[in-house]
Amino acid sequence: MYPDTNAEYLQRLVPGALVVKGLNTLSAWVLLNGPLAGKQVFLCGDSAEAKQAVRELATRLGVSVLDRGSLSAAREVEDFPLQLFPEWRLPLCIATGLTAFFFFYLLIRDIIYAYVEQDKDISFRIMVSLANKVFPIVSLIMLSLCYLPGVMAAILQLYRGTKYSHFPDWLDRWMLCRKQLGLLALALAFLHVLYTFIIPIRYAVRHKLISTVVDEMKDNKSTPFYFDNTDAWATDSFFVLGIMGFFLYFLLGLTSLPSVGGSLSWREFTFVQSKLGHLTLIVCTAHGYIYGWNKFLKPSTYKWWTPPGYMLCLVVPSVVLVLKLLMVLPCVDRSLGRIRQGWERTGPEEGRASLRATTL
Amino acid sequence: MYPDTNAEYLQRLVPGALVVKGLNTLSAWVLLNGPLAGKQVFLCGDSAEAKQAVRELATRLGVSVLDRGSLSAAREVEDFPLQLFPEWRLPLCIATGLTAFFFFYLLIRDIIYAYVEQDKDISFRIMVSLANKVFPIVSLIMLSLCYLPGVMAAILQLYRGTKYSHFPDWLDRWMLCRKQLGLLALALAFLHVLYTFIIPIRYAVRHKLISTVVDEMKDNKSTPFYFDNTDAWATDSFFVLGIMGFFLYFLLGLTSLPSVGGSLSWREFTFVQSKLGHLTLIVCTAHGYIYGWNKFLKPSTYKWWTPPGYMLCLVVPSVVLVLKLLMVLPCVDRSLGRIRQGWERTGPEEGRASLRATTL
Amino acid sequence: MYPDTNAEYLQRLVPGALVVKGLNTLSAWVLLNGPLAGKQVFLCGDSAEAKQAVRELATRLGVSVLDRGSLSAAREVEDFPLQLFPEWRLPLCIATGLTAFFFFYLLIRDIIYAYVEQDKDISFRIMVSLANKVFPIVSLIMLSLCYLPGVMAAILQLYRGTKYSHFPDWLDRWMLCRKQLGLLALALAFLHVLYTFIIPIRYAVRHKLISTVVDEMKDNKSTPFYFDNTDAWATDSFFVLGIMGFFLYFLLGLTSLPSVGGSLSWREFTFVQSKLGHLTLIVCTAHGYIYGWNKFLKPSTYKWWTPPGYMLCLVVPSVVLVLKLLMVLPCVDRSLGRIRQGWERTGPEEGRASLRATTL
Repeated sequence: MYPDTNAEYLQRLVPGALVVKGLNTLSAWVLLNGPLAGKQVFLCGDSAEAKQAVRELATRLGVSVLDRGSLSAAREVEDFPLQLFPEWRLPLCIATGLTAFFFFYLLIRDIIYAYVEQDKDISFRIMVSLANKVFPIVSLIMLSLCYLPGVMAAILQLYRGTKYSHFPDWLDRWMLCRKQLGLLALALAFLHVLYTFIIPIRYAVRHKLISTVVDEMKDNKSTPFYFDNTDAWATDSFFVLGIMGFFLYFLLGLTSLPSVGGSLSWREFTFVQSKLGHLTLIVCTAHGYIYGWNKFLKPSTYKWWTPPGYMLCLVVPSVVLVLKLLMVLPCVDRSLGRIRQGWERTGPEEGRASLRATTL
Repeated sequence: MYPDTNAEYLQRLVPGALVVKGLNTLSAWVLLNGPLAGKQVFLCGDSAEAKQAVRELATRLGVSVLDRGSLSAAREVEDFPLQLFPEWRLPLCIATGLTAFFFFYLLIRDIIYAYVEQDKDISFRIMVSLANKVFPIVSLIMLSLCYLPGVMAAILQLYRGTKYSHFPDWLDRWMLCRKQLGLLALALAFLHVLYTFIIPIRYAVRHKLISTVVDEMKDNKSTPFYFDNTDAWATDSFFVLGIMGFFLYFLLGLTSLPSVGGSLSWREFTFVQSKLGHLTLIVCTAHGYIYGWNKFLKPSTYKWWTPPGYMLCLVVPSVVLVLKLLMVLPCVDRSLGRIRQGWERTGPEEGRASLRATTL
Repeated sequence: MYPDTNAEYLQRLVPGALVVKGLNTLSAWVLLNGPLAGKQVFLCGDSAEAKQAVRELATRLGVSVLDRGSLSAAREVEDFPLQLFPEWRLPLCIATGLTAFFFFYLLIRDIIYAYVEQDKDISFRIMVSLANKVFPIVSLIMLSLCYLPGVMAAILQLYRGTKYSHFPDWLDRWMLCRKQLGLLALALAFLHVLYTFIIPIRYAVRHKLISTVVDEMKDNKSTPFYFDNTDAWATDSFFVLGIMGFFLYFLLGLTSLPSVGGSLSWREFTFVQSKLGHLTLIVCTAHGYIYGWNKFLKPSTYKWWTPPGYMLCLVVPSVVLVLKLLMVLPCVDRSLGRIRQGWERTGPEEGRASLRATTL
């Protein structure tokens, strides 16, 4: 059995006293120097009147108070200020794992391949070129991971024919960290944008540009550099899709700021997170597809029989978008709508009715 | 006559009950998974005590409560979660209309003109070059539309000689959507910035750069590329004004975040929105003027006798800035100051005094 | 003696009345058009019941109330809406002073030196190149000024052997404006980033690139442009450190948004501001060191016997980082930890114990 918390110990020590635990999430520094307005504190205690008195005191300080129940919750309240981003742990693990995997995958495909097969040392590319491939890849995968559990939940509801049964535990936990997944994906997309903007001032890029011209002149061609209209369209579309994707991404991130999200109505929040979110996923996936539009069928793309990174990263988003497309087909959408309004498909297992009664 | 809302129906059904409508702006999902702190909910009901009880319950949940009056307001409260950005509708219409107009205007002037008169297919420019002209044009016009109603209100007050008469309805509605106008303008300016940063990595731009060098070499000049100091000053000033304009724009946008704006005092908020806002408008308008500094008098600028897009977009900001300049002239500023402190110019219409009494 | 405020005058005029001063920080416009939620107002008055009544009224309006005590605080409450960013004044002075100093220092070293010694007019560089040197220099110095007072406070505590004695007044004031110092540093870093991204589209840069190629061709070398692997590594590392530094900077800035910071627990906030902050300082200082990695020993770097700007700007961050490194040495860290938990080094001056008693 756990030992008592200080608050519980105090309560037992002086039985007549009314002990209220709280405000411990505010540091002494903040209490002295403020501002307190907008901060959240927890309270717990066995006496309602005592809690009311402390609540009034806290409200007078400008903080908002959350009641966590009786004094037995003191441990949880005491642990809170010691937690370090608990809800970010899983998304951070996923991001780190994916980044490490794609870093080594592309290191082998790009740098080591060139060294072994062509005997060229292009290791300097690790710093910018390689990172600028890994970040967008992981970002797109994590963005699609935000929308995958929603589709899986819908499929589960369709299969079970009811909304009155709990999702598996892992799905619940996944759905609760979607915001953090999305924000990490946005951070990686932001890094991708910064990396892209410095491309033209890099030494290697300027060197290559100058070499191109000089080689061009050496060969003494009459039409030194043929302008390909298709290439111009393709690269410009690629950039525009990237910009639009990042812009939509950024809007999504903005609405996840507590003060912006809090000022939206429920329908507005749902609209932004669902409609705008799926649009972002579509635009970013198209950005990925157009990157490799003329490389999919070239054998030279598949070095050492491995597919390039952008192909791997398109798998999950494509699956999510296809499943989502199936979900909005009229017939599927209608069934799903009925289930979400409380309708149940009566099957052989009638026992579900009792489950429903308890859930309600 | 409208049918009753559920809340009113319930009240009539059980006359003795104290019905309070509210909390309907929180979804079941949010109620379960939180966080509730910072969310706003509405309450309405005929019994003050009942409302007080619900208010206390809601405050305990961490949400802030807005009283919307008696139960007859239930319809409004019920409609709220179904509204989708009502205050954004008008600004979005203006932005869409202006964007469509300038897109087709520049499409004709740039792409179709080149096709018809010079028989060149430069349609690939639609994706980036054209969009990067339309976005800043619409952004600047919308920024000036934020400050036009303020100037118009001042002129109206000067003309009427009093502040105690209502503005026309359209002016009131315009003034209420200034924030949304400004944020849309900021969004377009942000897109303009992103579009500008990718310019040097575009295929067409790099192609043109290489062609310039090769052509330069072919002609075998001794001074291959003359450095024009005026050009260097002009283009650098153009970029610096653009950067500074965007930076100030961004600061304006930051203070419109609910949590940042809420922490400013009234004088600070007025300072930022008025002084900083007009400075932004000046800098961005100068950015536009310097873009065409040496093109205004060239006949080749006026293709098919139409002025280029940036000239059209400078009209409204210039008018706003000239009017604002007139407003801060000492003599005008003094009259306006007196009017805003409650002074009235007594004219033939003495009936205005009664209006003042009622407004006070 | 100061004259009475209106509120105090009113109280003396009608002795029986219960006067409460407040809500004056909300403008008439905001009261009419909202939203009020999240705004902070002050209250003061001599009667607790009257204040309670006004507080309830204010809470009903959705604003949060801060009690400022008795009616004698009315002057302070009345002055509040007239204050214009009081806590930003000192940081803004520091930023302006540093910017002016480095601007003239680099103007002499870069532009005037070239004019006098080499008879070249490169004055156009003032607009972008010079500004893009001044901004990062001032930004890095101001970032390190955020972390210097923390280190100085720790040294002072170690020297005095107690935490129960007040810091000097200037140190207290410095520590209170660290947030504003940091945000100004972030703003300058943001400008540095924008200035850097437009480098490749500048007229002078493109001119130099073309000239390089043409000169290269004129000399008719067989290996026109040697690729230096070390240079590629150095410049790419320089850019990556800059990007990472800005990214961490940006995260720090995000957590200083009231709504984001308010949702963090105390340990999370400390973690972000201390660990992440020092990491940002390390990365940005490394960004500065790598910029001059191969220039430190060249005599041509020291024009007119003056060190270049980036060397000057590395002094303060290096000192802060070395001192911080000393602080986290196990032996120093242990003493400091004991002192911060309340332990005192008993020395010859026993009088300190009485000071401790009064402070407690």
